[in-house]
Amino acid sequence: MSKPKGFEKPIGVKDYLPHAVSKLRHIERSVLECMHRWGYDQIMTPTMEYYDTVGVASATSDQKLFKLLNQRGTTIVLRSDMTAPIARVVGSLLKEQPFPLRLSYHGNVFRAFEEDAGREAEFFQTGVELVGDPSPEADAEIIALAIASLQAAGVRSFKIAFGHVGFLNGLFQETLPGREAEQEALKACLLQRDHVGYRHILRSLDMDESQRAELEGILRLRGGQEVCEQAMQLSGSDGARAAIRHLCEIWDVLEAYGVQEHVLIDLTMIGDFSYYTGMTFEGYASNLGFPVCSGGRYDNLLAQFGRPAAATGFALKTTRILEVVEEEPAAAGKTLIVYAPAARGQALASAERLRGEGRVVVTEMAADPELAAELRKAAAAGSVFSHRGTEYGEMIVFGEGGRV
Amino acid sequence: MSKPKGFEKPIGVKDYLPHAVSKLRHIERSVLECMHRWGYDQIMTPTMEYYDTVGVASATSDQKLFKLLNQRGTTIVLRSDMTAPIARVVGSLLKEQPFPLRLSYHGNVFRAFEEDAGREAEFFQTGVELVGDPSPEADAEIIALAIASLQAAGVRSFKIAFGHVGFLNGLFQETLPGREAEQEALKACLLQRDHVGYRHILRSLDMDESQRAELEGILRLRGGQEVCEQAMQLSGSDGARAAIRHLCEIWDVLEAYGVQEHVLIDLTMIGDFSYYTGMTFEGYASNLGFPVCSGGRYDNLLAQFGRPAAATGFALKTTRILEVVEEEPAAAGKTLIVYAPAARGQALASAERLRGEGRVVVTEMAADPELAAELRKAAAAGSVFSHRGTEYGEMIVFGEGGRV
Repeated sequence: MSKPKGFEKPIGVKDYLPHAVSKLRHIERSVLECMHRWGYDQIMTPTMEYYDTVGVASATSDQKLFKLLNQRGTTIVLRSDMTAPIARVVGSLLKEQPFPLRLSYHGNVFRAFEEDAGREAEFFQTGVELVGDPSPEADAEIIALAIASLQAAGVRSFKIAFGHVGFLNGLFQETLPGREAEQEALKACLLQRDHVGYRHILRSLDMDESQRAELEGILRLRGGQEVCEQAMQLSGSDGARAAIRHLCEIWDVLEAYGVQEHVLIDLTMIGDFSYYTGMTFEGYASNLGFPVCSGGRYDNLLAQFGRPAAATGFALKTTRILEVVEEEPAAAGKTLIVYAPAARGQALASAERLRGEGRVVVTEMAADPELAAELRKAAAAGSVFSHRGTEYGEMIVFGEGGRV
Repeated sequence: MSKPKGFEKPIGVKDYLPHAVSKLRHIERSVLECMHRWGYDQIMTPTMEYYDTVGVASATSDQKLFKLLNQRGTTIVLRSDMTAPIARVVGSLLKEQPFPLRLSYHGNVFRAFEEDAGREAEFFQTGVELVGDPSPEADAEIIALAIASLQAAGVRSFKIAFGHVGFLNGLFQETLPGREAEQEALKACLLQRDHVGYRHILRSLDMDESQRAELEGILRLRGGQEVCEQAMQLSGSDGARAAIRHLCEIWDVLEAYGVQEHVLIDLTMIGDFSYYTGMTFEGYASNLGFPVCSGGRYDNLLAQFGRPAAATGFALKTTRILEVVEEEPAAAGKTLIVYAPAARGQALASAERLRGEGRVVVTEMAADPELAAELRKAAAAGSVFSHRGTEYGEMIVFGEGGRV
């Protein structure tokens, strides 16, 4: 193919200009501070990981991993999430550290998509992992912290829908025993939130009518604590009933956190079912069609790094949140200091003093006195003026004889 | 080769545990805030760039670039510095923005090394670019900002040595006209700070004795403004003399900034001579053998992105600075709230209130009253106690009947 042009960047990646960066940095900082106050300590892991360890363990499908070969011919991946790298650290550098471990992160992750798909190949995630605690309290803490994090990020209106992988697994094994392919097809529809496709497959299946009605009934199992009772009547499977009991306990703790208005139980919530082992959830902002956070319990991952342990966590989709939060109020304007050559020392000392007070100061030597006069006119005309493409709120002039 | 083990990560990359992260984040934030107060606005660019654009334009030699193929078969590189990506943005997204442009960044960059070399394959840089201003004032602003940035990072004792590519180029063309290979060999020695090798090559060259003495004399040209005068006597080349005059002007501005104690002129300072076109500098911390920052003028880069312009800038080697700065004083200890099941609502509300006041709070349900009693003993024994691997400074207990 032809060479890329000088101004081009790879498809699916982004530049963030100062305006977007200050918004992104504000979200990053507010969310990490929130997580810190909940006792989560931040860690950082490298961009590159071995394919055979973190690459294989991650929830990302193989063809979506960015791969490269290192100089020894070993396959390297660009991390596709932060959970698998953190599991590696918990099983190595932190292996003497007792459980529970509370860890937070903010980082960029990578996904290789068909280039035409218009999806992002690199994006930011901010999240936590709570490792070594299997209790409903731990799952509820994760959901409550997701809510606090979305609020810290400035997302005003959102709902967290949570379910349990064990409920669907139990129900499907009860109603479609041994019919793995059909179970997988139904789960895939739920994962895509394709209820029409789900009903279509259901109707095509050779099965008992009452069981078909049960499987169709779960699409209506969305709401508050009453959903747990309805679900208990729907399934007699031990696995499904244990899952429901766990969800009810999570609900109780969330009530104690006082966050009921932000959550609902959705028993069709399935997450990535090869990865999650218990509670899973997604958060939706009211003005966006895609999730702004997702998470759940993944009790099988840590064993792959030599330290079997229960674990639960979530990630905010920080790059998407950027699109829903309001602008930060503009900070105080910049100060322009223009100086004649002879007043350089005074002007630069003044800049240093103002910067020490937290002001933003740009200095410019104006050998040409007309420039200073023109600038002064601009500065006098209004509270904000523009000079060489930058907006200023204030100007200070140092002439030959000192400050004017 | 054999598969990597579960706990392994690629050679040359690092995990940062909470202690290191909080130090790194503190440096990052302090330095970016300092740059902001000097009028530099932060931008972010992607990790991946096209090889044929940013890869080729970067100052990094080809074999040190990490390369991968995207799905269309185009070669992608992991960015090896931030200067070339920013030049791309200045020539594209920012192309309507008038000069001068003041931009800052903090990011990770990648270098492929022979794996045995023990060097870092991924590390952090924090820096600025000042684009569109060819003046000595601009070069001096960059050096003065590098000094302010090192101070903001917490580096206590350091020196910035600066020189000018044009001085050495002029001098070599005058004394060794047309002998490119020999010039390059001498420059390579200076770049490596290999003065022994430099003298050795000089002695082996067939040349006039007085010129040999001149070329040897530059090794002694280190110091304050007096070096400029000495250098003027050393070379009659127009290029060399223009370079010296530019250095003298930079020195004058640095005096006006009041930062003489941190700088010295070093005429053997050459930087990457295929890249820099004028002033170049490096900063050394007193207790480290390698530079903690480097920078200079690169007036030829922007043309490769369709917008020819003068430019000057620097990068702090943030990962190295981590090794020289002192510990942050420890923040106030964490608070542990232990609660009986019946007091959950009260306990979680108390946690929320304390977090709102900026405290770090971990909550734990203790169905077992003995645990709470034991913990209370630990908390009473000293101001700091440890529980499940975490250190706490305070404990609050909620029993069946409320706060105890």
